Amino acid sequence: MSARVVDLIARKRDGGELSADELTAMISPDTPDYQLAAFLMAVVLRGMSGRETADLMAAMVASGERLDMSPVGRPVADKHSTGGVGDKTTLVVAPLVAACGVPVAKLSGRGLGHTGGTLDKLESIPGFRVDLEPESLVEQVREVGIAVAGQTADLVPADRRMYALRDVTATVQSIPLIATSIMSKKVASGASRLVLDVKVGEGAFMPDLESARELSTAMIALGAAAGLPTTCMLTRMDEPLGRAVGNAIEVAEAVDTLRGGGPGDLVSLCVEAAAIMTGDRASVERVLASGEAYETYRRWIVAQGGDPDAPLPRAPVVQPVPAPRGGVVRACHALRLGEAAMRLGAGRARKEDAVDHAVGIVVNAKAGEAVAAAAPLATVHARSPADVDAAAIAACFEIGDGPYEPPPVVIEVRG
Amino acid sequence: MSARVVDLIARKRDGGELSADELTAMISPDTPDYQLAAFLMAVVLRGMSGRETADLMAAMVASGERLDMSPVGRPVADKHSTGGVGDKTTLVVAPLVAACGVPVAKLSGRGLGHTGGTLDKLESIPGFRVDLEPESLVEQVREVGIAVAGQTADLVPADRRMYALRDVTATVQSIPLIATSIMSKKVASGASRLVLDVKVGEGAFMPDLESARELSTAMIALGAAAGLPTTCMLTRMDEPLGRAVGNAIEVAEAVDTLRGGGPGDLVSLCVEAAAIMTGDRASVERVLASGEAYETYRRWIVAQGGDPDAPLPRAPVVQPVPAPRGGVVRACHALRLGEAAMRLGAGRARKEDAVDHAVGIVVNAKAGEAVAAAAPLATVHARSPADVDAAAIAACFEIGDGPYEPPPVVIEVRG
Repeated sequence: MSARVVDLIARKRDGGELSADELTAMISPDTPDYQLAAFLMAVVLRGMSGRETADLMAAMVASGERLDMSPVGRPVADKHSTGGVGDKTTLVVAPLVAACGVPVAKLSGRGLGHTGGTLDKLESIPGFRVDLEPESLVEQVREVGIAVAGQTADLVPADRRMYALRDVTATVQSIPLIATSIMSKKVASGASRLVLDVKVGEGAFMPDLESARELSTAMIALGAAAGLPTTCMLTRMDEPLGRAVGNAIEVAEAVDTLRGGGPGDLVSLCVEAAAIMTGDRASVERVLASGEAYETYRRWIVAQGGDPDAPLPRAPVVQPVPAPRGGVVRACHALRLGEAAMRLGAGRARKEDAVDHAVGIVVNAKAGEAVAAAAPLATVHARSPADVDAAAIAACFEIGDGPYEPPPVVIEVRG
Repeated sequence: MSARVVDLIARKRDGGELSADELTAMISPDTPDYQLAAFLMAVVLRGMSGRETADLMAAMVASGERLDMSPVGRPVADKHSTGGVGDKTTLVVAPLVAACGVPVAKLSGRGLGHTGGTLDKLESIPGFRVDLEPESLVEQVREVGIAVAGQTADLVPADRRMYALRDVTATVQSIPLIATSIMSKKVASGASRLVLDVKVGEGAFMPDLESARELSTAMIALGAAAGLPTTCMLTRMDEPLGRAVGNAIEVAEAVDTLRGGGPGDLVSLCVEAAAIMTGDRASVERVLASGEAYETYRRWIVAQGGDPDAPLPRAPVVQPVPAPRGGVVRACHALRLGEAAMRLGAGRARKEDAVDHAVGIVVNAKAGEAVAAAAPLATVHARSPADVDAAAIAACFEIGDGPYEPPPVVIEVRG
């Protein structure tokens, strides 16, 4: 490492490339935040080659521990979503895949968001613990076929630091930086097969299909470079996924789905993801119909200390939002509905905020569904009547005349 | 100030503009280094409008104290050079201008460089003090007509911080950032008339004429915005200015120039600068020829505690560098010769380095001058014989056949 860090920043500023060793030096804890921040801005504006992006990911993975899944004895699958409103797919997909005999392990972070993350949703189940030690996590995957736990600080510490810095330096919007952030954690998690659910639309991190495709291409290439076969599903996030937007109410919807009910868009996305992860769509459909997936779900919840039969937390106020007119729902704006759920307390505006597991919004009339005037468009689960802003929630909906067929939730599958 | 700093960085990242208030917030001490570093990189890659550059300069000036020159009772002139090898012009120009009745005040920093800065050169005069309090500085300008002192920490503290950060984040190379750094300090110094000597060439900060012109245009506009009429001289820095490259030997050359001697390029640059600062070339030529400028120099040195008659420090070893062949000097590479002087101890590689006032190199044969084989090309003033690298110094020279007329030192005057 003969070049000084300032020279590496200068090279990226001028559009040049850094070697693997140079990228390792750049993201080292010895490099001060201000130098890393200048480098990240140069990456946002100058980009990175595919080779550099793969080397950056490898340097990030090498910054911490790597989970060893070999004691499981079989290839382990993982799934990840870029995050959307009402996204409870992990709770459905993991049991579907595990019930087909493919073990699933997933480490999650707790980001900011309109609703809690997967960990928050799971924690609304009484007794459920998400803080598993690496050994017990691997043991649980081997024994039960599923474990979903919080990331430890040992996993890709470079990403933790870079993510915090990007958040405050306007360097979030960069395909190589987004791709390496996601993929470094997935590679370090030790899976052998990965499905990424890349959300597209107004309620998603990637607003347009073009950038979602670009991100997918970058992540598939990173997976290939790291020996982790990766498939990207590009899925629509214009309206919330399913009907429930919250924490406990999303768990209830996931359970309903595993028992053969559930909203069509959620079922279709989960079956598609599980079919890719197992390579066996017929088995996925069979374990869903037979109740085996639901039984796997129950064993998983019990393994992590939860009681699948205990009542989920319920909000004291449950209040419908009436439709201002009759017609067919044309749109239910995911972003605005997610923000309304966050204002109820379902998500986090700041890292230190607590999540209220009970509150949220259930969409009664999704896009394409008919609603009568004054019939419920949505149902609000709130801590107090004062929290219910029915007008703001009604304003998330567009109602038109005549039939409307919303496009399928899965746009395309890549990789 | 409703926008958050991260949003301001994002706007510059996307090529937008910041308001005066927003730029003030951005460079505030409350903004962490990592955010300022990301912003500076965005400025390097996205640029700044003229309006933004002027507002940034004003915000930098407002970050600290501003010298009040009104007690002097007359408009005060200032000069600044972007820095070159053998640049002792301040020592000649200030007395020339003051002898014409125009008071001169100059605050200098101590940068890194091949030789010491103006302050270091002056400090080779026994007794000379550069740490003047603002009140005594203004008083001396009023009484004696000249003061040259070190910048206090109160003057543009935002520049001090930004400069240190730019140095380590590869964000030095940006016309708006260079221009605001120079001009904020000049505006805060309280002068009413400014001449900037923008060096062009291999030994200068601006290697090519095009970027020197661009920087000059930016600085002239900043002067106009701040009510400080500014003229830029673009001057050649391919070979050292004058013959002496060091500290005490440069003072000796300046004195020689004020007494009617001195190398032609130095005389011509100093007379041109003084003519612009006074608006009266005839008077400048008169005070130089009459010895009034030299008398003014002596009064100035005495006013700052120095003894103009005391012998200057002399190096124990004075050794000629013989010409490897006879001919006419085609080039004497300023950058390489400056680096050789720095290796002798005349300049600073790191801020904490001390400067050896006695050492340096005198160029005996400048471009266009004939030299016989084995006659001295240069004379080295060194601390010990082991420090003399005659081969490296000889290698700075190119010797050709037949006459050669070097281009004039002043390329053009703008503004």
